[in-house]
Amino acid sequence: MCTSYLDDKFVTFRNLPMEQRISCFTKRGRVFDMIMSQQMDRQFIDDIYHLTNKLRHISKSKAGYMFLQNILAHKRAMLYFNQPSSRTFLSFHNACHILGMKTSEIRDPALSSEVKGESDDDGLRTFSSYTDLIIMRHSKSHMAERAAWLLNTFSNRPIPIINGGSGQDQHPTQSLLDIYTLQRSFNNKGGFDGKTLLMCGDLKRGRTVRSLSFLMRNFSDVKVIYAAPKAFQIREDVLEALESYGVPYTIETESLQKVLPLADAIYMTRIQDEHDRDHGDSGKIDISKFKLKASDMVNVKPTAAIMHPFPRRDEVDVEIDVDPRAMYWRQERNGMWTRAALISYIFGVEHEILNY
Amino acid sequence: MCTSYLDDKFVTFRNLPMEQRISCFTKRGRVFDMIMSQQMDRQFIDDIYHLTNKLRHISKSKAGYMFLQNILAHKRAMLYFNQPSSRTFLSFHNACHILGMKTSEIRDPALSSEVKGESDDDGLRTFSSYTDLIIMRHSKSHMAERAAWLLNTFSNRPIPIINGGSGQDQHPTQSLLDIYTLQRSFNNKGGFDGKTLLMCGDLKRGRTVRSLSFLMRNFSDVKVIYAAPKAFQIREDVLEALESYGVPYTIETESLQKVLPLADAIYMTRIQDEHDRDHGDSGKIDISKFKLKASDMVNVKPTAAIMHPFPRRDEVDVEIDVDPRAMYWRQERNGMWTRAALISYIFGVEHEILNY
Amino acid sequence: MCTSYLDDKFVTFRNLPMEQRISCFTKRGRVFDMIMSQQMDRQFIDDIYHLTNKLRHISKSKAGYMFLQNILAHKRAMLYFNQPSSRTFLSFHNACHILGMKTSEIRDPALSSEVKGESDDDGLRTFSSYTDLIIMRHSKSHMAERAAWLLNTFSNRPIPIINGGSGQDQHPTQSLLDIYTLQRSFNNKGGFDGKTLLMCGDLKRGRTVRSLSFLMRNFSDVKVIYAAPKAFQIREDVLEALESYGVPYTIETESLQKVLPLADAIYMTRIQDEHDRDHGDSGKIDISKFKLKASDMVNVKPTAAIMHPFPRRDEVDVEIDVDPRAMYWRQERNGMWTRAALISYIFGVEHEILNY
Repeated sequence: MCTSYLDDKFVTFRNLPMEQRISCFTKRGRVFDMIMSQQMDRQFIDDIYHLTNKLRHISKSKAGYMFLQNILAHKRAMLYFNQPSSRTFLSFHNACHILGMKTSEIRDPALSSEVKGESDDDGLRTFSSYTDLIIMRHSKSHMAERAAWLLNTFSNRPIPIINGGSGQDQHPTQSLLDIYTLQRSFNNKGGFDGKTLLMCGDLKRGRTVRSLSFLMRNFSDVKVIYAAPKAFQIREDVLEALESYGVPYTIETESLQKVLPLADAIYMTRIQDEHDRDHGDSGKIDISKFKLKASDMVNVKPTAAIMHPFPRRDEVDVEIDVDPRAMYWRQERNGMWTRAALISYIFGVEHEILNY
Repeated sequence: MCTSYLDDKFVTFRNLPMEQRISCFTKRGRVFDMIMSQQMDRQFIDDIYHLTNKLRHISKSKAGYMFLQNILAHKRAMLYFNQPSSRTFLSFHNACHILGMKTSEIRDPALSSEVKGESDDDGLRTFSSYTDLIIMRHSKSHMAERAAWLLNTFSNRPIPIINGGSGQDQHPTQSLLDIYTLQRSFNNKGGFDGKTLLMCGDLKRGRTVRSLSFLMRNFSDVKVIYAAPKAFQIREDVLEALESYGVPYTIETESLQKVLPLADAIYMTRIQDEHDRDHGDSGKIDISKFKLKASDMVNVKPTAAIMHPFPRRDEVDVEIDVDPRAMYWRQERNGMWTRAALISYIFGVEHEILNY
Repeated sequence: MCTSYLDDKFVTFRNLPMEQRISCFTKRGRVFDMIMSQQMDRQFIDDIYHLTNKLRHISKSKAGYMFLQNILAHKRAMLYFNQPSSRTFLSFHNACHILGMKTSEIRDPALSSEVKGESDDDGLRTFSSYTDLIIMRHSKSHMAERAAWLLNTFSNRPIPIINGGSGQDQHPTQSLLDIYTLQRSFNNKGGFDGKTLLMCGDLKRGRTVRSLSFLMRNFSDVKVIYAAPKAFQIREDVLEALESYGVPYTIETESLQKVLPLADAIYMTRIQDEHDRDHGDSGKIDISKFKLKASDMVNVKPTAAIMHPFPRRDEVDVEIDVDPRAMYWRQERNGMWTRAALISYIFGVEHEILNY
């Protein structure tokens, strides 16, 4: 359509150094748009950790819950999801509702004005006309970044953008809930510093793995193991980032079994075959040695945390669900609370919550 | 997928005697999950009747309505409908809103994580992670029962499940609104005890007819007439249930006309041809003698109540809508109020409402 | 289906004189249903103008916003959109939320009971059973009018209907936001009376152009220019209406350029090729001379207002967005506020707002 004028400007922006890009998403020294996990420093991660715990605590009584209902009752959120999602969608939707926000949603592109030939840019400016926050998942990489850049640069009423997953690129709030779950799981076991994180599955195309890896720079003395067949191994840019952070990593391509006993946290992921159109047939690759079976649990540390961003297929046996080391159902629920914390932080109302 | 482990356990559960199954859906002696109409005894039906009337009365003033808005303002509901529905969906949705609940919805399976190969069990546990109530309609029979069983057995945070229609199996809240409508219609005519209920149409595959039939045990001296061509007649399991309750019934296969004058309540239903894939072509069967025409109304008792669960095609002439015996539009609206009553009952806040 | 009985009655109604049709949509001398822009007189337009400004002003503080949240908190709205829409949908949705209304939506006909053979009439009566307001967009012309007529004639609980766009017929709330934008743009420039409005694009099938044209009778001394290729020129019924109002107009079929310097307001629209199934291939017609380029802006009056109902393709260069004469983004946002004003007016709570 008519966006080549903006396309060029956005390419220029994307070529800026990371710090400058990040500063575009910052207002008054704080996170304003949440676009990529590189925006999260240790202070931010710890702030969200405490804020999340406080939110959960307050919500347990009806009086506390009603207090939260009033926190952002004067704000409206828009959830724009052009990829199938139930988990991330519902998690954000309920996070908004916990804070009293009213919500609107576009989940099926066929129902929107895209079908009439409207540009993505105009669509996003439209959403920003009616609401105070856009939470978006998009099949194209960098669409959340473009949206935030667009509003911050050209709109006289910029509103915050939260990236709920963009292409094969990033899923920063997933990494936020993952790191929260790791901090909480190891809270009475010396914290997450010094621990070994094993990530297994489709590391190449799984944006959750990418985003979580970028957070490792914030922790001391952590080690990372990537376990996957060669065809699904982690991309070079992530390894380069880890090297620049000084975070040691190991690549395991034969089997999950070999590295299982070394791990404090085991982060399992599914094969992302919805991306197969672009990358060939992943069905031909043998992934049978990169699944977690109930019988494997004897080789897992008694203090370990088993995680999964979901949805799962058969990477983790259902029998493991009742094992106390299985953290994935709690991890999922943590997502709603960390997202509520993030939203309240972005709107600058965290002190009202912390002072309750 | 990975659910065969649970499949076996659920088969075992389903083979338990009805009382034991029902007790799985009961907490502290009260209905917790609403799965099948066999759960409803006369006390429950009467409680919901009074609660519904009280809710309607309170809602008439703005002050009363605002009181109701606060009743469950600290709870969030999830509506999961994988079959097309507007009536049941909207009825529940607005029932939740009347009580101040915030709602989330999954109505199009293509938007959910099912497309990524997630099991139904994991999907339901996910919904339960974010909300306090799941209202579900599902194309597979027994899915609501499985969901309730799953959460009550394996989750450390079970939330109530309400069955909004499961396959060709049951639709218990429809029977609840039907029985409410019958009680209300005959409130000044001696009550529903002793009356004759005529049900007509696709009795074989209509889950509303099945669920309503199971409620007949709760009333004294009622008679049931099933009018339909042989191919659409009521199934054996329902007749066996009536026999065990001691409720007399008649089967009429020639025409509605023959039995019309005998009925106090006439419950019309449409042909459920969306199920035709499984059961052959229902279009070949002559149903012309099982429709209610405006000209038939002279043969209907002056005190009768004409009902229909909707949607209708041409089973009931539109001209009949203005006849005072036509109860179906009120019946539809009753659905919202009885569902609001049910939800408040399940959350144990009915005394707050009754004491207003 | 079974609606021929009502079809005949509706044809009779549609043949009544305009005043009688309009009076069907009026209660206690006020607009009750908003069906067509012929219902709007100058008093109404000015009332909505002031009410909208007041609403915007109140909403700026959290206390004011929370006051508005309470205005219609006892009412529930239904948004029934069977055509793709994001802008109009979101605009109404958020307008409802600003006033504290809870909302339900049917946006995908495949999810509704239409697929089970239910008539439109029954569907609409169903929506009216559960809610207090129906906002509808429909692909068929006159469906909103039929819905309002149906409920006002046959229901014992009529609720207001707002037409959010019906076929190629009308889009009255678009004309309401357009006239608000014109009044606001020329507020410090002598008002809209006496100004020249240039409309350009697919005038034949654009219902926004039609609805806005019908409003011209309410202003003194305005002139209208219609600029489009012959194949897309305005229909005769609109020209006849202008003649009956005494509003002078010009038809320009060669190029936008020729008339650009004459205009105070320039209303650009896109080609409505989603209607092409009915009207032949619009792609064959050369519309290149009816686009607004950045280089054209030197020929536009310095006081002019550039408008567009959106979505746009390339009728207006993106570079123009930063020109202070570009009013379209504000126009879009005005839509939400005028719709909130309209809804509060229909429910008769405008004095509560004006007295705040």
